[in-house]
Amino acid sequence: MLSKKSAGIKSSAVRELLKFSKIPGVISLAGGIPATDLIDVEGIDTVLKDILSREHRGLFQYSVTEGEEHLREQLSRWNSEHNLNVDAESIIITNGSQQAIDLLSRVFLEKGDKVFVERPTYLAALQIFGYTDATVVELEYDSEGIQLTLLEKEMATGGVKMVYLTPNFANPTGNTISYEQRVKIAKLSQQYRVVIIEDDPYGHLRFSGDPVPSIFSVAQSLFGKNHNVCYMSSFSKIFSPGLRLGWLAVPEHFHMATVVAKQALDLHTSTLNQSIAAHYIESGRINERVEILKATYKDRRDYLIGSLHEYSGGDITWNTPDGGMFLWCHLVEDIDASQLLQECIKENVVFVPGEVFFARDPQKNSLRLSYSMLTAETAREAVIRISRALKKIK
Amino acid sequence: MLSKKSAGIKSSAVRELLKFSKIPGVISLAGGIPATDLIDVEGIDTVLKDILSREHRGLFQYSVTEGEEHLREQLSRWNSEHNLNVDAESIIITNGSQQAIDLLSRVFLEKGDKVFVERPTYLAALQIFGYTDATVVELEYDSEGIQLTLLEKEMATGGVKMVYLTPNFANPTGNTISYEQRVKIAKLSQQYRVVIIEDDPYGHLRFSGDPVPSIFSVAQSLFGKNHNVCYMSSFSKIFSPGLRLGWLAVPEHFHMATVVAKQALDLHTSTLNQSIAAHYIESGRINERVEILKATYKDRRDYLIGSLHEYSGGDITWNTPDGGMFLWCHLVEDIDASQLLQECIKENVVFVPGEVFFARDPQKNSLRLSYSMLTAETAREAVIRISRALKKIK
Repeated sequence: MLSKKSAGIKSSAVRELLKFSKIPGVISLAGGIPATDLIDVEGIDTVLKDILSREHRGLFQYSVTEGEEHLREQLSRWNSEHNLNVDAESIIITNGSQQAIDLLSRVFLEKGDKVFVERPTYLAALQIFGYTDATVVELEYDSEGIQLTLLEKEMATGGVKMVYLTPNFANPTGNTISYEQRVKIAKLSQQYRVVIIEDDPYGHLRFSGDPVPSIFSVAQSLFGKNHNVCYMSSFSKIFSPGLRLGWLAVPEHFHMATVVAKQALDLHTSTLNQSIAAHYIESGRINERVEILKATYKDRRDYLIGSLHEYSGGDITWNTPDGGMFLWCHLVEDIDASQLLQECIKENVVFVPGEVFFARDPQKNSLRLSYSMLTAETAREAVIRISRALKKIK
Repeated sequence: MLSKKSAGIKSSAVRELLKFSKIPGVISLAGGIPATDLIDVEGIDTVLKDILSREHRGLFQYSVTEGEEHLREQLSRWNSEHNLNVDAESIIITNGSQQAIDLLSRVFLEKGDKVFVERPTYLAALQIFGYTDATVVELEYDSEGIQLTLLEKEMATGGVKMVYLTPNFANPTGNTISYEQRVKIAKLSQQYRVVIIEDDPYGHLRFSGDPVPSIFSVAQSLFGKNHNVCYMSSFSKIFSPGLRLGWLAVPEHFHMATVVAKQALDLHTSTLNQSIAAHYIESGRINERVEILKATYKDRRDYLIGSLHEYSGGDITWNTPDGGMFLWCHLVEDIDASQLLQECIKENVVFVPGEVFFARDPQKNSLRLSYSMLTAETAREAVIRISRALKKIK
């Protein structure tokens, strides 16, 4: 009775994996989750108590689909401090940026469309596109960055509707797209009328290197308001994932259709939670929190890299991302990371095999290691355990 | 660039209407919203302060897709007090029941499928089905209740995938499906393997007549756990719409596909809000609140009906629902309710023209009057204004 697209679905490997990560004694490098110890509970509580002390009956009633004006205005103001000029009127509040991807896939994608994604890319974006009738095509990276030749060629022949990119410290690769390539992408998008989805959950978590302007900003400065880039970000990595808050900025010619789709999906996002976020940004605490996160994640990245240097015995290679929460690794001998994971589960350490991030022809020897929750000690112990497991199956 | 389904979308008439309803001096019978003055702000605040006083860091972290166990258990227990036996394991928490409809349409509907709905039916369900490739077919009501002959015939010939019903005090008609018909629907669903979506946001708001068992319960008692009825309800009408909380109970053979779809849509529903609802149910305050709502809505229904008797001069007919928030009305002369609305806007009173609740061939002389927000005075004044507007265009 299930639709063809649903009938094939099994519980995902990652979903099953997260169960292991909750067993006491297991060190998890699997979750794409921010550090629980760094959530500013005191700050959220202060804001919440402040909200409760004022007239707040309206927060429990229905609200507008596009999101609370207070939050959209605070987001607009706060982003302008970070070189992203977005009008409050362009912003739509969503249940995390996950919903924003779904929303746009609903608004744009239909049978015959092609969606280009990075290879590899965010797993849950692949899941969403899997519910549509569009075809997913992967863009390779090489030493020059993301390969745009295939994209340009396909754009010229038609059928490309959307390009989904995470330009800053992508999940899982940690890749950042260069300024020159962002300009090129913005221009291609305009020339061939292709929607760019710029997913930027990690942009504020840069701890080395220089910030690069968003594709949205580039397109806006080149083409004014009628460009084709939709920008989305999230409160999940810098504030609180449990509140399920993300936001989306779309050019005016996409705005009405996107709001109407959001209305059909779930009317609007929790008014109480939007108010918490608006007051938190307004209080200025968000900037202090981002500084703490950046410093801590840099340390944690370095703990993990240091441990890999010391204990992986040359069996694993990795990147060194300038931000975000992940190392993207490969096993140097052609070992299947899923097989390694089975051994690692016995050693009480888990990670996500890289294969789940590919639309097709996965790199079986790839793996994603999240460092967001590590300490110096758990990083060291995790790599020792992984290396021990690796020796068993080599 | 928008998909064909999105390209045709304009801002809905109802959406535009809600703007008028916020102008001071305007009496609105338009909104499908619970009474703001009856939201138990004190109760929610008490629960929230209690949550903040305990260890609650986990509420701000990611949670599980199916919903917090505490909430699912409280829902299971509370429903059992109201003759609905639903295991906590069958429950999936959603962002209002709106999202539950979307979720199931994602899980089941594909090209070639037919979805049967009541004629007329909930506007936003029609919007959701409009994003799918399924075809909507309407089921008429007559003096015997909902007409099942066409449905049975079409089920026998195949192609029917889903039947979407609001069996208690439907929006907009106030109709309730009889016990005999519920049994018949459950049996047809089983015989022809057709999914029944039982949308029940108003079930707790019965203020006259006897409760009728849900189709879900009927199917469960007839066929055990492997029936085909999905039940959904909402906290929006009895607790708080702004928190965006609904819930869905599905038979086991649909459970995994539904959870995976929810994961793709937005990972999970706000953990904080789920915790508020769980504690609120546990505290027992929800039962007191439902009693207050029922008594008040009955009064408000009677104010509106009394005013229609007194002031509408025989120009309007209406139903008398046993619960919920709406009167379903018709203009006795063949006057277009949309035209009447234009005159009513000048008179500072608004309602929703009934035509928006039809998939096709709308009854142009129908209108929905919401009484949830009325007082004796505003009900009287509203009907006087509508009658005055009506006289102008007759």
